[in-house]
Amino acid sequence: MRISELSRRSGVPTATIKYYLREGLLPPGRATAATQAEYDEHHVRRLRLIRALIGVRGLSVSAARNVLDAVSEGQTDTHSLLGLVFGLSPTGEPGEKPGESDEEDSSSPGGSEAASLLAELGWDVTEHNPARHVIDRTLWTLRSLGVDYDWQSLLPYARLAEKTAVLDLDQLQAPSDPLEKAERAVLLTFLLEPALLALRRLAQEAESHTRFGA
Amino acid sequence: MRISELSRRSGVPTATIKYYLREGLLPPGRATAATQAEYDEHHVRRLRLIRALIGVRGLSVSAARNVLDAVSEGQTDTHSLLGLVFGLSPTGEPGEKPGESDEEDSSSPGGSEAASLLAELGWDVTEHNPARHVIDRTLWTLRSLGVDYDWQSLLPYARLAEKTAVLDLDQLQAPSDPLEKAERAVLLTFLLEPALLALRRLAQEAESHTRFGA
Repeated sequence: MRISELSRRSGVPTATIKYYLREGLLPPGRATAATQAEYDEHHVRRLRLIRALIGVRGLSVSAARNVLDAVSEGQTDTHSLLGLVFGLSPTGEPGEKPGESDEEDSSSPGGSEAASLLAELGWDVTEHNPARHVIDRTLWTLRSLGVDYDWQSLLPYARLAEKTAVLDLDQLQAPSDPLEKAERAVLLTFLLEPALLALRRLAQEAESHTRFGA
Repeated sequence: MRISELSRRSGVPTATIKYYLREGLLPPGRATAATQAEYDEHHVRRLRLIRALIGVRGLSVSAARNVLDAVSEGQTDTHSLLGLVFGLSPTGEPGEKPGESDEEDSSSPGGSEAASLLAELGWDVTEHNPARHVIDRTLWTLRSLGVDYDWQSLLPYARLAEKTAVLDLDQLQAPSDPLEKAERAVLLTFLLEPALLALRRLAQEAESHTRFGA
């Protein structure tokens, strides 16, 4: 199909499609003339994914490119492939390499609090998963605001996260194609995040109503 | 204390403190001369909260002002007070009023999917809680990307959110002062969000390692 048809099918304006092509988010079509190219179903699907990552999930173009590159590398080993996807930080940037850690860690010579938490839980997680820093920073911030909180306070939340991850991974059993598996992992990891926080907000209101309501 | 001391104590630059004063995020100090004012512990604490909301949680100045206003209104009824806090959307804006709903809702005349989910769960949640729209938009987006997902797919996640909210509310039992309760609700609701998502990412990697690792 021509770019105008691709725009109609995907709901993405032609100018935006050209921008994604220039930025390398969308692979080029098959050239049919000097200024014309043919696009296919793959482009429609990928455009929808780009729109979801940027428009819905709010990622920057470069963060979206990292996610798309991870999906496109076509790793055959499921754990490495999911590691690429899961190892992405909340903003979609690749995880920090060991040695690039920030100041909070150097101030805790006995290891980060996230490390203590993971050891207690028995979770096998690579050193460079950026979510470790999010845990350390959150605890540090809460304490700086006078809330008495340490890694042990997070243990009951971590037990629930464990159950959440089982639900997540169960949904990745079905697709046998690794690319499809990775795409589904990206979709469910990124796009469910706002919904999971929304469920917590709704549950808080319901629980507050039960406890304190008239 | 003078503004320079306030800056030293809070770790916030003087120019930034003046900006927060102009924007009404920080209440003015007690004027001691035409161009001088005295600040107290209340300002130190509030500055830390502002820095957490804007610097850590990434809220805009106007979103942070909404949160701070909610905390300052000094409601005595705990449920109304928590409603103000919990009713804030993920970006800290107040919830949409009925009638301001967006197009997804009008396209589902039988009521939103969030409403079906809440009815099934038996959760008592006000109509204008903006988290409802987040649920509807997420489901709509996942389906537009070819993921077969409806409100029933979210039920197991909602059961876990219920348990999370119980943990959350348990931590608000202790403070008897309603202002302190609300401040703690803001801190734990907003600041734990990245940590809860980080726990999910870590648990996903651990679960992936268990299932697919070498």
